[in-house]
Parts: sequence; C-alpha cells; structure tokens
Amino acid sequence: MTIKVAIAGARGRLGSAALTAIMKAPNMDLVAVLDYKYEGQYLHGTEVNDDASGIPIYTSLEKLAAANKPDVLLDVTDPDAVFKNVHDAITLGIRPVVGTSGLSKDNIALLTDLAAKNLIGGIIAPNFSIGAVLMMKFSAIAARYLGDIEILEMHHDNKVDAPSGTAVKTAEMISEVRDSHRQGHPDEKEHQAGARGADFEGMKIHSIRLPGLLAHQQVLLGGEGELLSIRHDSFDRKSFAPGILMAIHNVMERLDLVYGLENIID
Amino acid sequence: MTIKVAIAGARGRLGSAALTAIMKAPNMDLVAVLDYKYEGQYLHGTEVNDDASGIPIYTSLEKLAAANKPDVLLDVTDPDAVFKNVHDAITLGIRPVVGTSGLSKDNIALLTDLAAKNLIGGIIAPNFSIGAVLMMKFSAIAARYLGDIEILEMHHDNKVDAPSGTAVKTAEMISEVRDSHRQGHPDEKEHQAGARGADFEGMKIHSIRLPGLLAHQQVLLGGEGELLSIRHDSFDRKSFAPGILMAIHNVMERLDLVYGLENIID
Amino acid sequence: MTIKVAIAGARGRLGSAALTAIMKAPNMDLVAVLDYKYEGQYLHGTEVNDDASGIPIYTSLEKLAAANKPDVLLDVTDPDAVFKNVHDAITLGIRPVVGTSGLSKDNIALLTDLAAKNLIGGIIAPNFSIGAVLMMKFSAIAARYLGDIEILEMHHDNKVDAPSGTAVKTAEMISEVRDSHRQGHPDEKEHQAGARGADFEGMKIHSIRLPGLLAHQQVLLGGEGELLSIRHDSFDRKSFAPGILMAIHNVMERLDLVYGLENIID
Amino acid sequence: MTIKVAIAGARGRLGSAALTAIMKAPNMDLVAVLDYKYEGQYLHGTEVNDDASGIPIYTSLEKLAAANKPDVLLDVTDPDAVFKNVHDAITLGIRPVVGTSGLSKDNIALLTDLAAKNLIGGIIAPNFSIGAVLMMKFSAIAARYLGDIEILEMHHDNKVDAPSGTAVKTAEMISEVRDSHRQGHPDEKEHQAGARGADFEGMKIHSIRLPGLLAHQQVLLGGEGELLSIRHDSFDRKSFAPGILMAIHNVMERLDLVYGLENIID
Repeated sequence: MTIKVAIAGARGRLGSAALTAIMKAPNMDLVAVLDYKYEGQYLHGTEVNDDASGIPIYTSLEKLAAANKPDVLLDVTDPDAVFKNVHDAITLGIRPVVGTSGLSKDNIALLTDLAAKNLIGGIIAPNFSIGAVLMMKFSAIAARYLGDIEILEMHHDNKVDAPSGTAVKTAEMISEVRDSHRQGHPDEKEHQAGARGADFEGMKIHSIRLPGLLAHQQVLLGGEGELLSIRHDSFDRKSFAPGILMAIHNVMERLDLVYGLENIID
Repeated sequence: MTIKVAIAGARGRLGSAALTAIMKAPNMDLVAVLDYKYEGQYLHGTEVNDDASGIPIYTSLEKLAAANKPDVLLDVTDPDAVFKNVHDAITLGIRPVVGTSGLSKDNIALLTDLAAKNLIGGIIAPNFSIGAVLMMKFSAIAARYLGDIEILEMHHDNKVDAPSGTAVKTAEMISEVRDSHRQGHPDEKEHQAGARGADFEGMKIHSIRLPGLLAHQQVLLGGEGELLSIRHDSFDRKSFAPGILMAIHNVMERLDLVYGLENIID
Repeated sequence: MTIKVAIAGARGRLGSAALTAIMKAPNMDLVAVLDYKYEGQYLHGTEVNDDASGIPIYTSLEKLAAANKPDVLLDVTDPDAVFKNVHDAITLGIRPVVGTSGLSKDNIALLTDLAAKNLIGGIIAPNFSIGAVLMMKFSAIAARYLGDIEILEMHHDNKVDAPSGTAVKTAEMISEVRDSHRQGHPDEKEHQAGARGADFEGMKIHSIRLPGLLAHQQVLLGGEGELLSIRHDSFDRKSFAPGILMAIHNVMERLDLVYGLENIID
Repeated sequence: MTIKVAIAGARGRLGSAALTAIMKAPNMDLVAVLDYKYEGQYLHGTEVNDDASGIPIYTSLEKLAAANKPDVLLDVTDPDAVFKNVHDAITLGIRPVVGTSGLSKDNIALLTDLAAKNLIGGIIAPNFSIGAVLMMKFSAIAARYLGDIEILEMHHDNKVDAPSGTAVKTAEMISEVRDSHRQGHPDEKEHQAGARGADFEGMKIHSIRLPGLLAHQQVLLGGEGELLSIRHDSFDRKSFAPGILMAIHNVMERLDLVYGLENIID
C-alpha cells in the first residue's frame, strides 16, 4: 500500500527536509501541499511556480482533501496555524502527524478526544529525532537502577532559552520513575551561585552555550564505582526524517492520537 | 523474609566486596563460607582465625548446607571450582548465583537442565555491573533504529586481551537484532592496517590500552545527521554489589537458571 | 594599513567562506579574484555576472597584479593549479597564503627557496583550523610528560581514507618529541585483527566512520593514574576563517615561506 | 649525583605514595622522615617500629638536618604545620617542595622573600598532577584564539565544595589572557536558576557531583564552527608521583621559590 501524504509548512526548513524524505520513501506519495498562500500554484523543491509537474498547493484543507484524498497530513507549521489544521484534518478523516511544539495542554487534550471519537490515528511530537527520544527513554529506564542523575545540555550561543526543552522533557520522564531526592553532599557548599546547576526534583541540569556547538545532550547516571552516560548529538535537520517516516507509518495502524515519539518506539 | 546466603570465593577481591555488601543488606543473612581450606575456622573480613564470632568456613558444601540451610550460594571462585560447586548446590536445593566467567557452553547447558529438573532458580552472570548490562541492552535496542555502530573499549595497559569480553558480548547482543552489513565508504582505503578496527559482522571494535585507564566502553550509533553514544565507566569493584544483590533476590522467585544479568533487568 | 587581498578559487566552498570573512575583516580589502574562466566579469557572492559592483575576475595573475596590486594571494584552488599560481605570485612580489593540500615536498621546497630569494613572506597550510592546530601542538607538548598515546579520529562514512591526514600529521608531530616505543601489555593478544588500531611508531591510531559524524579527533595521553584528552570537533567550514585571516596578517610581517599553521601560532 | 630527600607527612595518603616513588627513583635517596611523634623510631612502608632498617623518624627538623644533611624537604603535611617546616627548611639550607594547599598569600610571599634572600630553590604546588597542570596551561594558551569558554568539573558526591579549586585556578589562569566579556546570547533567559552555571568574568563553571565519579575536569573552548575540549581524568593518587619527582629535580637547579607546578613545566 502506498500512503498518500499532504504537508502543511512545506516551505520551511523542517518542512523542506520532510518533503525530500517523503518523496524518496518507496511506499509514500506526496499528493499536495497546504499553505496560507499560492493557491493553485505548484511547489518544486523550495520554489513555487505555475509548472504543473510540481506538487499542487491549496490554501483550504477541505479542497485539498476532496481533490487528493490524503491518508496523512504532516503539519510542520507554527503554533498559530497548527490547531485548526489538525482539528480540520481529524474531522475530514485525515490522520495528523504534527511536528510543531507550542500546542497548549488544553488543545492537545481536545484533539486527543476528537481523534478518539473519530477513531483516527495521529501523533503530536515536539521532537522527531529518534536518537534524542532513545536517549530520553534509556535514561528513564536506567534511573530505576542508577538514581543520581545530572543532565548536561550543550547548544550554540544563539539559543536564548536555558535549560533546553529536551533537557526539561528528559528530567520529566526520569521523574516519573525516580523518587525525588536531594543529590550531592548533604553539607554541599556552592561558593559561586549556579555552580551546581538548576535543580529539578534533586536532579541537576547544566546548560552550556558556546559558538561552534550545534545541539548536544548528555545524561550522566552515577552509582557507587560506576557511571553510565547517554549522549545524543544532533548535527543536522536531516536526522528528523526517519522519525517522521516512522510516525507516518504508525498513524496508519492506530485509532487514537498519541503525544511524544517515545510512545511509538518500543 | 531474610535470605540466607553462603559464599564460595569470599577471600578473593570480588568475593570480599560481595561479602561486605551482603552483610550490609537488610534482608540478607550471610550464614557460611565455602573454601578449599580452613575447615572449622572463621572469616573476619579478609582474615581467618578461630574466633567464632566470624563467618564459619566449610570445605564441604554438603556439611555447610546441613548446618546452615542457605537459600543461595554465591559462587565467585575460579573456572576450575565453579562447575562442581554449582552442580552440588542445585542438587542440594540451594539456588546458585555465579559470578565467574569461564564456564563452557556445554557445562552451562548441563546446569540449566539440572536446574530445570529440580525446579530451582539460578543465574550465571559473567558481568554483575548493572551499568554495563544497561549499556549493552540499550545498544541492542537502539541498533534497530541506528544500525551503523562502532564499539570503543578502553582499558589499562595491563590487560592482555583485545578486544574485551564485554565489547564482544555487546557486539553479539547487537548482532541478534542488526542485519550484518558492511559499514563505511564502499571504496574505503585503510592506508595503515588496523586503522578501521576489528570487524564483527560489519560493526567495528576498537581497543584502547593506556596506563591510567580503568575499564570503559563506549558504543557509538550513527544515523544521518545524528549520533547516539552510550558509555559505561567502571571505576571500582564496588559497582558489582547492586547487581549481585539483585541477582540474589531474583533467584528466590524463579524456577530456572538464566545466563546473563541482562535477562533479569527489564 | 589595509591589506589588499586577491583570491584564487573563490567560487569553491572553502573559497566562498574565505571571501565572506575577508570582506568582513575591517583591515582587509578584497581587490580581485583569479579564476580559470570568466575574464572581465564580476563575482557577487557565488554568482558571476557583468555588474561592475562585484569583485573583478581575471584569468591572468599578471594582469590582476598590474591592475590591483594585491599584497596577498589566497590560493584555495586544487593541486593542479596551485603550484603555478604561487610561483607566479612570489615572482610578482605577492605574498602567497595557500590552503590547498596536495603540493609535493619537492614543490614546497622549491617555493620555499624562491620566497627566501625574493625575501617574501608566505604560508602553505594543509589545515587552517586554529583549533585543530592547537590540538596537535598541545599533544606534542604533553607527549614529553605522558608518552603513551592513542589517537582516535572520527569522520562521516563518506570519507574514503583511513586514517585521516590530520591524525597522521598529529602522530608525526608527536613523534618528533616522543621516543618510539611499543605500547600496551608486552604479551598483548589481538584476538580479532585490527582491534588495537594502526601502529605509528608504537602509538595507535583508530579511525571511526559513521553516518552523522562530521570531523572529530581526540588524542588520549595516559600516565599512571591519569588521562589527558585533547579533542577537536570541526562542525563547519566557517571555522577556517580565523586561521586564514591570521595567516594573511602574518605573511605581511615575514620574509620567508613557512609550512603549517602551527608555525605561526605561539 | 644522588639527591637526598626528607619527607614531612610521610604517613598520610599522599605522603605514602610520594615515599614509594622517591624510594624507587634511581637518583634519589630517602634519608629521613619528619613527624610530630615517633622520635627515634623507624618507618617501614606505613608501619612504625624499632627496626633500624627503616627510615629514621625525627620530630625536630634541626636534628634531622644535622644527622642526614638532606638536599630537599618534601612537605605534604597539613596547613597548620607547613609554614614552620618550610621556614625552618629554608633557614637550614634545605630546599622545600610543598604539596600542601592552604598556605595564605601572605605566608607564601614571606617564604618567597626568605628563599630569595637565602638564594635557595623551592616550590609550592597545590596540585602535583602534571596532567592537570597541562590542561590549565593549554586552556590559557587556547583562550587567546578561542575566547568563549566553559569549565565543567566532575567529582564524587563526597566533595563538599563547588566549584573545585582546580576549576577556579583554571579560570584564573585563563582570565590573565582573556578579556572579561559576557558569553551566551545577549538576551539569554535562565528559566531555572543555576542552569547556566557560575559566572567567572563571563566564563561559566559547572560542577557535577555523582557517586561513582572520581576527579575529572573538562575545559570547552568554542569558536564559530569548532570546539576544542581539554579534559583531565584523575583516577589515582599515583598520578602525583611524576610531578613530585620533577619538582625535586627542579628545585636543585634554581635559586628562588616558585608557586605552581605550571611554572616549572615548559
């Protein structure tokens, strides 16, 4: 079976990488693009023109669906557009695969309900990197045995926020299996504020920002006489492609909407 | 319930660390020591004397069992002694926990059969480090998604063998889920022999030996645009204690003999 | 003083990064481009056209020199073109800064002689990364104190050659201060060929190749009870710009031609 | 020439490692031990008794000097004893090699003056690890080229103080060559206090504390498109021996007292 895919956000950087991956995938067919402009035109790579050999562009999901009957809508737009797109997709019987962070908890709950009522599969994943998700999952498993943990995330100094969303998500996943407890020496003295990092239920998070860095994270789990370190380096946006393709396959086989790629990786 | 434990090999370095851990464990009772000499004497830490406040030493497992009725025999002796000890233990209804590598495949099969017939739990583990076992398990899981893998193991230069047993075991566990395939550039040129490491069904293993190093291993799993690294550092023999205690608990609840700590860690 | 710079190879990837850096440098003036075609046209970023607001293109260094009087010629062309370009530059009184590897030892000697006779400064650098050069220099200094060394280089699996040129260069620089000696256990057994890496006068070199990797090298120096690790990660071609600018400044102040960026870094 | 060495603090852990190293050194002679008790007895390894085949113990440096004429006094006692010992040694013409931290700046200045007046060599080194000192020196050199720096130190969680003395010393050495400047994004937002570490003139210091860890430090220096990392792992007290022996040789050839092993390593 060939899965018919439509993309919303195809002209963005992630969208453009996704588009290439989907067009190369042997059992997928990229049938249409949803955009907020360029109705009736065609997408050729990152260029838009009248040449009908490209992917047809629609500004209405309803029209797009009527003409192309996609199985899946990959939405990599921004937080403003995504809720309506996904809501409409579910109503139209199109399975949503969402790579945009920024949906509120309420909206996620609402979409989850809607998908359940319509018996339609879907996934919302703030991070499509399989490697990053494995790092988080493994950390949470290992935390049952090695419960003293520090997270070290390293990014380019053009990143404004510290700690990173992935570091916080990792700490949250670990917290579900780890009893909150203070780490370090009971009489620890922090002679310079901040040396021991940010506290997350006793775990410590350290954020490094340097020119040159890309996106890296290391989870250190210590036990008496040993250390387990799980590290993920993200060098290129291309690393999201396998996770996106996996998600597209996965939503075809389910009847509910899940949050987080970790829930479709065994 | 308190688990009654006997140790064979208690005067060795691993045995001595195990003894300390078992004596500290709240729900375990160290009842006796099996040795090839010192019958009728007592063990106090690493010292042997006549002071009956120590752990009684036996040279016969039968006598030891009759007098102390241990639930578990922890055997950390050498390859020569271990088979008879474990065979006798199973026959006597004592659950074996074995931390000695060097048992042949035939002998392991034989003991597994014997335990099955006697409906007695047991475990043979060449490596009691939970951290190392997690590294291996995680590598094998991740290999399903990131199939290009190199293993880098680093040890003190007083180690004779390369690659290490743990590196080979890791490669074997990965091979069970990874299709054998050649890695690297198809036209790869190794200008100096050995640069690309040892080959294990297409995976590469590199062994580093330097004074200063202890025991370290890193598994590198690459995908387009990303790298997942799982590293274990073993700094001290104390790191084996939690794995030994976990195994002692586990054999109380099973009716068969398993090989490898990885099979009792979820 | 503003340094007038011409570039040969400006349309290549390294050339294009260099061009951007030179145009931004406050005390440099990019006056012209030497190319094998496009005579009389103009370079705008990576595009060539007739718009005279760009950088003028010449196919003859003689004409370029007559019209623009550059102080320095940055040559980032290929091995075929570079010798003639540099030879001509020195003869014309233009200081060469060469970022092309592939010049033979004989040709380097010849150009060194020519520069000495003409009392003209120049530099030939196979690697313009200051970070990589520091890694090599530091390794050679540390080798006097910590003489057991292994080099681990890691590259994308689209790299054909192993070990990398930088790894070999590092080993050569270390060898100048380190007495050749066998490392590892005297009775070392390599159970799988290649595990212990390539041998370079007793040092070991290990080459890792994985999709996802960029260009990374780690030099491990071991002493009893300690390990010193010096690592360089090269994430982007932009990292060459500071070394190129430093070299351009340096050749203005010297009267000979040097080989290797390490000779102009203190 | 054989150097005659006396040790103060020989029964401590560092003293005991130093004693072994000095006794093995081909061109050194361990002539006596200075202690606060055991006058007239003899040291055998870590044991004290009457057997005159051991190293003679004195409680007075004057008597020790009269009887044994040592060239060098290695002082690895505690902050309370060290000042008087070193003062007396210089007065008696014995070169001090001091491995005790905790001398005040005033006392160091006073001893430096005294040594200068007496034209006697000496060294006070808070850290005798050559590897650690190389890490600090290299970081300070590299900081001239790669000025954005974060220091990551990792220790066992039985360490009370954060950041470590070595991390602060590293930051101080770097500050001598690096202009103080704010690092990270100008609009950086620390959503959880401490995430970005402790600030040292714009550099960041992060302290990790986990069971299992020993003593490790990593200096990360970033430039556009590249990262240089210099790491030191201290696994065992034995690593101090080469630095102590080097210092003993060095003080024989100088006529002043220096502070810091970095000043006798080229």
